[in-house]
Amino acid sequence: MTIQMNLDAESYDIVLEDGCLERAGELLDLGRRVLIVTDDGVPEQYAQTLARQCAAPVVHILPRGEASKSLKYLEEILTRMLRGGFARGDCVVAVGGGMVGDLAGFAAASYMRGVDFYNIPTTVLSQVDSSIGGKTALNLDGIKNAVGAFYQPKKVLIDPRTLETLPRREVSAGLAEAVKTALICDEKLFTLFETQPFTEHIEEIIAASLRVKKNIVERDEKEKGLRRALNFGHTIGHGVESVTGLRHGECVALGMLAVSPTPLRARLMAVLEKLELPTAVSANPGRIYGAMLHDKKADGGELTVVRVETPGSFTLERVAPEKLRPCIKSILKEP
Amino acid sequence: MTIQMNLDAESYDIVLEDGCLERAGELLDLGRRVLIVTDDGVPEQYAQTLARQCAAPVVHILPRGEASKSLKYLEEILTRMLRGGFARGDCVVAVGGGMVGDLAGFAAASYMRGVDFYNIPTTVLSQVDSSIGGKTALNLDGIKNAVGAFYQPKKVLIDPRTLETLPRREVSAGLAEAVKTALICDEKLFTLFETQPFTEHIEEIIAASLRVKKNIVERDEKEKGLRRALNFGHTIGHGVESVTGLRHGECVALGMLAVSPTPLRARLMAVLEKLELPTAVSANPGRIYGAMLHDKKADGGELTVVRVETPGSFTLERVAPEKLRPCIKSILKEP
Repeated sequence: MTIQMNLDAESYDIVLEDGCLERAGELLDLGRRVLIVTDDGVPEQYAQTLARQCAAPVVHILPRGEASKSLKYLEEILTRMLRGGFARGDCVVAVGGGMVGDLAGFAAASYMRGVDFYNIPTTVLSQVDSSIGGKTALNLDGIKNAVGAFYQPKKVLIDPRTLETLPRREVSAGLAEAVKTALICDEKLFTLFETQPFTEHIEEIIAASLRVKKNIVERDEKEKGLRRALNFGHTIGHGVESVTGLRHGECVALGMLAVSPTPLRARLMAVLEKLELPTAVSANPGRIYGAMLHDKKADGGELTVVRVETPGSFTLERVAPEKLRPCIKSILKEP
Repeated sequence: MTIQMNLDAESYDIVLEDGCLERAGELLDLGRRVLIVTDDGVPEQYAQTLARQCAAPVVHILPRGEASKSLKYLEEILTRMLRGGFARGDCVVAVGGGMVGDLAGFAAASYMRGVDFYNIPTTVLSQVDSSIGGKTALNLDGIKNAVGAFYQPKKVLIDPRTLETLPRREVSAGLAEAVKTALICDEKLFTLFETQPFTEHIEEIIAASLRVKKNIVERDEKEKGLRRALNFGHTIGHGVESVTGLRHGECVALGMLAVSPTPLRARLMAVLEKLELPTAVSANPGRIYGAMLHDKKADGGELTVVRVETPGSFTLERVAPEKLRPCIKSILKEP
């Protein structure tokens, strides 16, 4: 299946197809210098499969983990490209999860003011969410995604077969973003999570998530309004992520739970439990609150919070941060 | 005078007016957090004059010189913004020459994926050329402008009064870019350089240069073709700049001379001498050649060279780099 992202001159195709990694040579223009960025947590064969289909590949392996999303590793990638003789007509391909896509995408955006970028996400989280929409970023001074660019890929290849090697916990964490998408815009998808064994419906979940995200990004590429809906659960979620060792998706799950009103909360809790996602966390609420305030969505003393009353629709609300303290308390584990 | 740069959603005004720095508060939206970036070679009063017109100014002073156009100083600026609580709705203003504009512009482009950027150029070079068009950049691994973004300012204020404090050598070096503009697109401007005392016509020279650049940038914002004309003299010029201590404009002057055919060469030489710009250089031609090859315009083994036969029009030519060796020799000082 091919989904088109329509953004005028920045339009591109998202190919969702079992085995499409093996066909990258047909689907992408790899007859040039290609920097393949991956990390040491991604099965090596994915980058190798891609490299075999390139005229002049260079494989660059980052250490896994969020700490690699830094200026230091950006410099490493850019320097490697310079020394490898990469010109404006060459390209960068990300093979991995959200960290790899974010950093490689920013490297592509800024190398000589922009070279072609392809994304081949290999985790649930990046397949359902982060690989499309053109957000690239790195972290600075403890602030997540403090630096980056809106830079659209030229094409995205989503091969669900690459998910087969993922540990269960990674799959669940990634699906938290699909649950988010369902809650803000797709009631049917939320019902699927409530009623079906999700492992048998991964491709359907990816496709539904991509469709929602496509519609939102097409209407608000640079996140001036509507696109903020995709941050549902992320305000408190990023706070939790900063002060715990939990995965991004797990923190988004907690963040959504924290701001969900009573009737929805029970339904969401049931879905999270089914996915084996956390529904409470052991952490100092003051530290979560402090980290949340540092989050980039803070603007003029107020925060934009996404609210969902019933699955499938949302509202954006400006609130004083203080108002979120009780929400944070609501996801703490009893001592 | 106000010149409009028409680039759809990225359109902006260029205000060229004596004393407009004093009126920045009316012309720009300074009722927010404003990071003023300048360097220690720019008279301090310019940044102070601007700061007095801002609601919440922070003045950030870089060390003067090309070495500050680095990832290290980018990090310094971005960290300062993070710690100062800058949000997406805040802005960055550059007050200084091309180095300040390039680096501050890239910081604005990448801070939280982009905040508003204003440019107040205070050197001839930046007023006639680099402050408009949206090229931002920094240097990496010895390569000029290896990293950056196309990111348009929201407004540019050009106050010719700020040129009064400049040393003569700076003025001349800056005018080299205006001579370039004249050669590729404006025969009348070239005649002005040949026949008039240029110091009495600075504002006219700036306006003419801006008009040419505006027309080129509007037709090719991302430098896919036509805009390369603005690189006239820059291929060899950047090579000279890398291996000598000469100023950018001085190197462009030499670079233009190197690729000018015989009849034009004599006329250009006369103009450069009038401007007290160098017409020959003491340097190792092999080193200039090597540095030139490193330059970012190298692409697929060939270079795009801009050729001018008579003032006012140009052609783009793809040449093997070897062909430029005699051109480099032609600007060497006799031993």
